[in-house]
Amino acid sequence: MTISNEDSKKDCLYLEDLSPGQRLTSGSYRVEAAEIKAFAKEFDPQPFHLDEETAKITLFAGLAASGWHTAAISMRLQVEAGLPIAGGIVGVGGEISWPRATRPGDTLHVESEVLEVRPSRSQPDRGIVTVRGETRNQRSEVVQVFTGKLVVPRRPAPTEDPSDIS
Amino acid sequence: MTISNEDSKKDCLYLEDLSPGQRLTSGSYRVEAAEIKAFAKEFDPQPFHLDEETAKITLFAGLAASGWHTAAISMRLQVEAGLPIAGGIVGVGGEISWPRATRPGDTLHVESEVLEVRPSRSQPDRGIVTVRGETRNQRSEVVQVFTGKLVVPRRPAPTEDPSDIS
Repeated sequence: MTISNEDSKKDCLYLEDLSPGQRLTSGSYRVEAAEIKAFAKEFDPQPFHLDEETAKITLFAGLAASGWHTAAISMRLQVEAGLPIAGGIVGVGGEISWPRATRPGDTLHVESEVLEVRPSRSQPDRGIVTVRGETRNQRSEVVQVFTGKLVVPRRPAPTEDPSDIS
Repeated sequence: MTISNEDSKKDCLYLEDLSPGQRLTSGSYRVEAAEIKAFAKEFDPQPFHLDEETAKITLFAGLAASGWHTAAISMRLQVEAGLPIAGGIVGVGGEISWPRATRPGDTLHVESEVLEVRPSRSQPDRGIVTVRGETRNQRSEVVQVFTGKLVVPRRPAPTEDPSDIS
């Protein structure tokens, strides 16, 4: 089952709405060289993220985005339209890998798949959902895989109508 | 064995210099509310990262940094002085968790421990080093654990002296 971004804008997803095999796709975002350098200057000041010329003689053989920049962009894509969880996307952690680097001019999107839905034993109002998110570039090459565990609320019981005295 | 930041400024570490059990400690960094909001606005625009008042009624019960912001700050601390790998810190991925949120005013540092050093079979000039990095706040509470796999070069063989004709 695929949930389109149109659906997701209308309805936020509660624990009851999620099941293994569901897939969601985010919008897309083009990453510019200037952003790669700006992020790196603030958070990951290493030559291969800061300067095209110096980057050529490194392992990356050219300017590459910090993996944490790819992670942050992927989060933004999922928050905006890719994963409309009720109450927001709250991750407790997960496994991340960067099979290849994000390069200047890459257009990224995230394809998510629900892997597991597990109600919490100790907290009856929520559960943990495992989601695998693949961030892909314009050639559909995977630049990041993040398999994360999210806290997802259960759908609240309908409020009782105080005028109902039946 | 503990490598101080003083040592690390002088010498970058090659694969041969690393062994399981080695520990390194980064400098520290104080995270302000304005930065938490600025990062969130760009990469993780959710109420609990954007606004103190709205955050109060969320799962976080107050303003909290995006987990990816904590990850990015941790990277900066390690790049600056925490993990002086020759050729830079190049991660292929790892496992990340956020046991508690980073809050405005928190002062973070990263404590790293080398878990495994494995020479590459296919590429003789490098290896993979597994490092567990715990990001802690001023109360020594862990806000992030990232156990990452890094690509680390071997120490190059000394260049032959062309004037040596012995």
